[in-house]
Amino acid sequence: MREELMRMLEEREDEMIEIRRYLHMHPELSFKEEKTAQYIADFYKGKDVEVETNVGNGYGIIVTIKGKGEGKTVGLRADFDALPIQEEADVPFKSKNEGVMHACGHDAHTAYLMVLADCLIQLKDKFDGTIKIIHQHAEEEPPGGAKSIVESGKLDDLDAIFGIHILPMAPAGTVGYRSGYTFNGRTYFKLKIQGVGGHGSSPHKANDAIVAGAYFVTAVQTVVSRRVNPLEAGVITIGSFDGKGSFNVIKDSIEIEGDIRYSNDEAQEVINKEVHRIVKGIEELFGVTCELEYVPDYPPLYNDPELTEFVRQTLEENKDNTLKEVVQFPKLSPSDDFAYYLEKVKGSYFFIGCTPKGVEQPYFNHHPKFDIDEDCLLVAAKAVGNVVVSYFNKSE
Amino acid sequence: MREELMRMLEEREDEMIEIRRYLHMHPELSFKEEKTAQYIADFYKGKDVEVETNVGNGYGIIVTIKGKGEGKTVGLRADFDALPIQEEADVPFKSKNEGVMHACGHDAHTAYLMVLADCLIQLKDKFDGTIKIIHQHAEEEPPGGAKSIVESGKLDDLDAIFGIHILPMAPAGTVGYRSGYTFNGRTYFKLKIQGVGGHGSSPHKANDAIVAGAYFVTAVQTVVSRRVNPLEAGVITIGSFDGKGSFNVIKDSIEIEGDIRYSNDEAQEVINKEVHRIVKGIEELFGVTCELEYVPDYPPLYNDPELTEFVRQTLEENKDNTLKEVVQFPKLSPSDDFAYYLEKVKGSYFFIGCTPKGVEQPYFNHHPKFDIDEDCLLVAAKAVGNVVVSYFNKSE
Amino acid sequence: MREELMRMLEEREDEMIEIRRYLHMHPELSFKEEKTAQYIADFYKGKDVEVETNVGNGYGIIVTIKGKGEGKTVGLRADFDALPIQEEADVPFKSKNEGVMHACGHDAHTAYLMVLADCLIQLKDKFDGTIKIIHQHAEEEPPGGAKSIVESGKLDDLDAIFGIHILPMAPAGTVGYRSGYTFNGRTYFKLKIQGVGGHGSSPHKANDAIVAGAYFVTAVQTVVSRRVNPLEAGVITIGSFDGKGSFNVIKDSIEIEGDIRYSNDEAQEVINKEVHRIVKGIEELFGVTCELEYVPDYPPLYNDPELTEFVRQTLEENKDNTLKEVVQFPKLSPSDDFAYYLEKVKGSYFFIGCTPKGVEQPYFNHHPKFDIDEDCLLVAAKAVGNVVVSYFNKSE
Amino acid sequence: MREELMRMLEEREDEMIEIRRYLHMHPELSFKEEKTAQYIADFYKGKDVEVETNVGNGYGIIVTIKGKGEGKTVGLRADFDALPIQEEADVPFKSKNEGVMHACGHDAHTAYLMVLADCLIQLKDKFDGTIKIIHQHAEEEPPGGAKSIVESGKLDDLDAIFGIHILPMAPAGTVGYRSGYTFNGRTYFKLKIQGVGGHGSSPHKANDAIVAGAYFVTAVQTVVSRRVNPLEAGVITIGSFDGKGSFNVIKDSIEIEGDIRYSNDEAQEVINKEVHRIVKGIEELFGVTCELEYVPDYPPLYNDPELTEFVRQTLEENKDNTLKEVVQFPKLSPSDDFAYYLEKVKGSYFFIGCTPKGVEQPYFNHHPKFDIDEDCLLVAAKAVGNVVVSYFNKSE
Repeated sequence: MREELMRMLEEREDEMIEIRRYLHMHPELSFKEEKTAQYIADFYKGKDVEVETNVGNGYGIIVTIKGKGEGKTVGLRADFDALPIQEEADVPFKSKNEGVMHACGHDAHTAYLMVLADCLIQLKDKFDGTIKIIHQHAEEEPPGGAKSIVESGKLDDLDAIFGIHILPMAPAGTVGYRSGYTFNGRTYFKLKIQGVGGHGSSPHKANDAIVAGAYFVTAVQTVVSRRVNPLEAGVITIGSFDGKGSFNVIKDSIEIEGDIRYSNDEAQEVINKEVHRIVKGIEELFGVTCELEYVPDYPPLYNDPELTEFVRQTLEENKDNTLKEVVQFPKLSPSDDFAYYLEKVKGSYFFIGCTPKGVEQPYFNHHPKFDIDEDCLLVAAKAVGNVVVSYFNKSE
Repeated sequence: MREELMRMLEEREDEMIEIRRYLHMHPELSFKEEKTAQYIADFYKGKDVEVETNVGNGYGIIVTIKGKGEGKTVGLRADFDALPIQEEADVPFKSKNEGVMHACGHDAHTAYLMVLADCLIQLKDKFDGTIKIIHQHAEEEPPGGAKSIVESGKLDDLDAIFGIHILPMAPAGTVGYRSGYTFNGRTYFKLKIQGVGGHGSSPHKANDAIVAGAYFVTAVQTVVSRRVNPLEAGVITIGSFDGKGSFNVIKDSIEIEGDIRYSNDEAQEVINKEVHRIVKGIEELFGVTCELEYVPDYPPLYNDPELTEFVRQTLEENKDNTLKEVVQFPKLSPSDDFAYYLEKVKGSYFFIGCTPKGVEQPYFNHHPKFDIDEDCLLVAAKAVGNVVVSYFNKSE
Repeated sequence: MREELMRMLEEREDEMIEIRRYLHMHPELSFKEEKTAQYIADFYKGKDVEVETNVGNGYGIIVTIKGKGEGKTVGLRADFDALPIQEEADVPFKSKNEGVMHACGHDAHTAYLMVLADCLIQLKDKFDGTIKIIHQHAEEEPPGGAKSIVESGKLDDLDAIFGIHILPMAPAGTVGYRSGYTFNGRTYFKLKIQGVGGHGSSPHKANDAIVAGAYFVTAVQTVVSRRVNPLEAGVITIGSFDGKGSFNVIKDSIEIEGDIRYSNDEAQEVINKEVHRIVKGIEELFGVTCELEYVPDYPPLYNDPELTEFVRQTLEENKDNTLKEVVQFPKLSPSDDFAYYLEKVKGSYFFIGCTPKGVEQPYFNHHPKFDIDEDCLLVAAKAVGNVVVSYFNKSE
Repeated sequence: MREELMRMLEEREDEMIEIRRYLHMHPELSFKEEKTAQYIADFYKGKDVEVETNVGNGYGIIVTIKGKGEGKTVGLRADFDALPIQEEADVPFKSKNEGVMHACGHDAHTAYLMVLADCLIQLKDKFDGTIKIIHQHAEEEPPGGAKSIVESGKLDDLDAIFGIHILPMAPAGTVGYRSGYTFNGRTYFKLKIQGVGGHGSSPHKANDAIVAGAYFVTAVQTVVSRRVNPLEAGVITIGSFDGKGSFNVIKDSIEIEGDIRYSNDEAQEVINKEVHRIVKGIEELFGVTCELEYVPDYPPLYNDPELTEFVRQTLEENKDNTLKEVVQFPKLSPSDDFAYYLEKVKGSYFFIGCTPKGVEQPYFNHHPKFDIDEDCLLVAAKAVGNVVVSYFNKSE
């Protein structure tokens, strides 16, 4: 089956590119991907599979491909939402939607997976087991689509899940893997500090919220510098300190907003506990009242070491002139809601190089000039195809 | 002459009240007191004195009353601008100008001084020397009117200057004095801290202006707590910390605005030096760039101890059933540009009680419900009249 | 009686000087003034007065002089302890006790008061009322002697109390007075912060007490800068931060000691409350455990305004060629346990100039070269004598 | 040759254990390992190799084993110093030197390498190339022995270097490897802050060194929290804050000592630059004078990825019933001066599991109860022996 699948994918490379370009021209924002979802659903129309739409908290789609006999169930996920960015890349299939752009490569994710899914449908009497194709909405905007799809229960029967992200850290032909914690988790927080206003000349009659806020900022530095395991990553960024007022009036309240990152669950817990403690400490220290909104977004993404080693070995053994190299990638700082699937079921999220040919310093994901080498589509399809085939062959 | 003057003032008490009410109904903001100035100038029309208008940087008026012979020159000052406050006091002569109010008593200052000046004009063959009546514009809004009047050179020949402020800290009938530093000086400052923006997850590639700003706020506390003489007053209020931004984007710059108070010149100097030093320190500490605007407004107001004792003694010796009591007042935290006259020439600025009859907790100056006991007008006129008469009699 | 008393004092000036020199040569430390007390008690031996010794928590002495009839009871206090200072002043009557010195002038206080007391004893059939001479031990070392003497109940019948301190801020002949809060109060504190030790490379497994201590120091600055009324004095000095340890071992605990000053009761209360709050805040902020010892010493010294005005007027009216001038003194930063008497009964503590003749920059109290103009002894005796006489004459 | 070597090692396992126990009983502190060095030198006496003693800044020994023909030169290093720890492990061969203990396993390092070296000497006509056995003194105490041995020039001809450390993170039989940055580097620093002393009540006349020091501590937190790449490790521990003084005297100077860790060269550079900047910033901020001693110790240890992969593959291919498993180890926080060799020449430092049999929670290196499974000696010898053999066979 492996050879047949690879051949089929090679023959349909043009179709992947065509689909990717169509999607690129018609990007839609997270939770608003109505037409994208329709386009995907139409693709599966008439094919002999079960298609569920509007899965989770948006336009999620699950396509279930049942093999000829009983066996393991494996999930494959591609996200399909775009970003609120005005495209500046100079490509003929530029975005037609003002201010919206597939600047993170989800068009490529979706394109390769649609074609791969179709091939697997055609080959479904060649394997025992079930494949669930997850076309996921809203990866870019917390709370994201993944969590709700997991909570729908429709993936409860998965034995493993795999997915890829294209990254211009390597050329098309290179696949990257990483075992264990791979992407950071993140949390949004908002802190309102309520003091008592007053006249600038009489601080003793007021309770200065700006002063309390400034000491919060200096105290919170110790969470990263002294509380988080130095071998793990932790970041607390205060992106907003809203204390605008009149120069000679003591501010009665200020509002701080921030972004927290952590590389593993332990760091997440430590930061969570310490930030809450420091907020209480500031209340005590200055006699102010604090309101803290603390909203964890995506958790740290944890690739199962065994399945990651399985992916590495599978790809290493099936290298060809398309999929040429398999390398370890460093830990990465972004977040991805694929992490929610991995909290539910073991799996591995890996990376497909996509640096445009001849470019030394490629624009990264989320840049208005982000561009890719479309050769990566076939690499992605073959890589994930190989993983599926080997996974069904794998003795537990 | 003293008795004659006192009698004249008593006879014209109603006129003072009338003028004060007229002014109260027609308040004008600082630097915009065109009609008020016209009204005052009209008052002096036809009288045998020199009247200079448009003195200094606004509608300032100087009326020069020459006595019969050579002698000392003494200045008497009253300010005539109003505040951007919507009157809420329940008086029949309420402000007719929307959002503008004589909430600081400058209407009373001007009213008593106009009548006193007219009496002194009539008595001018009874004394040797010169009296300069200074009707000053724009006390409420820095840079104020006083500084420019001093700089006009028209007061270069003064030997002494006196002025009063009405305050509801005591009933009409009480005069307050204070020797040495009496009112605080103040400075406005604005600090822009320029760092380098970046993504919240990558602080090492940015230079966080909010963090630098927060450490500035904590460091600047030491100026008051450790640098200013504890027996003197110093206040640094940061009224505005403008660092509003996106929660996950590191701010590239923030802007802080503040208000500084000090009770004497030494404290002013120390704070000036230390704030500048701390700004430089923050630049070094965080590698940010700072722009500091540091704008001293009114200096600390220093009453000459000898002339203040002279005022005290004069009033003590001339108490009557109008001017009943002379008491020491505590140091006060407001600022007044009368301080500029006192930097130029010795003098004393003293206080006229004005608590409305029967009121226990009067509204203070600058309050929308500020109100006075109009008996204070005659007290003010008699107090200043007595001081002038004694001053001319005083042997150096 | 006044004239007779003044004459008597003038006649016994040499005796005052002799006593003062004797005491100067034989100084004793606070709570150890056994011989000094004996010397004083011996002086009163055989005189027709009641002498109580060992009053309070040390060698305090109260001499009660009853006049011929009923009347008010007035207290006069002089302290008699010396300081642990090696004298460096070049005087023939240098201290004979190694490392101990009357560097604060208590020898002069005691000398004038002994002679004045003796004169008053001789004149006791000339006045109605009672005089209590308080020879007080241990002013220099908290908890001091005054508090315990007050608590002994032996002064419960006082109507007023007076005392003086010699100060080289003015020449002999000048008396200084100050109404209201005059000397600062003070508090000692010790803070132990208990964290958890650990290895320098693993801060996440420890809880760094030095970091917690440093944030305490920065946070406590806000008490003076933002909580104390700027027109009042507040000082918090951390004189000791004991966090010595090994460079690569995280400290488990540190100890901070400090000195707090305040100019009035309100400032005292605010600082007390805020320091306790900040300690709790640090516990919360860092999860450390704090032990705070907070030991108020002498309270702010408050001179009754009416009695101070009475002193001023009395002295002003009784100036002669010894007591030449009466001036207002500024607020002063030292502390004195005379404050405890003034918490119990109204009174006034005033100042006797003592700058050595011909010296421009005198050494101040507590300096090893502190020296005085002994003319101040007679000034002190006359000043206090006049106050007593006038006080008995004073109609309430 | 490989098989022969393995057989020889197996036959001499008892000798390794014997040597290790002898060394364990006779530990010597860093730079004082005179007898240990003599013991090692004696071992090589009469063998056909060049032995250099007293290499570098101490008792370092280099044994040069020349093969039969020209070839690559490979270094093998074992350290032989002990720690100032009183042994508490319950073993029959307990340390005989009071307060000194081989608590880091250097006895095992030295024992296996002596026997391995002797075997290689015997096999020297079976390989082309040169082996340099480095018996290194003073690893435990900066500046360490490695740096000086590198600087001696005696290793200039190395093509590669290998070494191992025993660690109770895995049982005997397991070998751990890690590519790239593996151990943290570290720096010692001492900061003296010089202010101006004074009396606690008059902060404005002094310049408080404790306050400046506290702000240094809070500011330096930002280096780790905002400047170091969150994906790398950075630690700044201030282990000593020596500001002990009198509670009411403002400290004129304090001394801070600290320990800095970093996982790679970039983090080292950032921290170096920022700490220096912050020290300058504190000088500016508070007008104090700072003296900074900044002494980098061992650099981050960087294992060459290619040679580490070579080690992994070699061991993987040569597993047997002694050397059973090869696993990736996490990044580790200790420091080792093996890093200096790796700055000079490519190589890999890897790890030999040594958990005592039947122990679940082993005591770690540097613990007074540290103990090992002596099976690890043969594992170490075989692992390093295999690497040497393969390295000579390796085509470049």
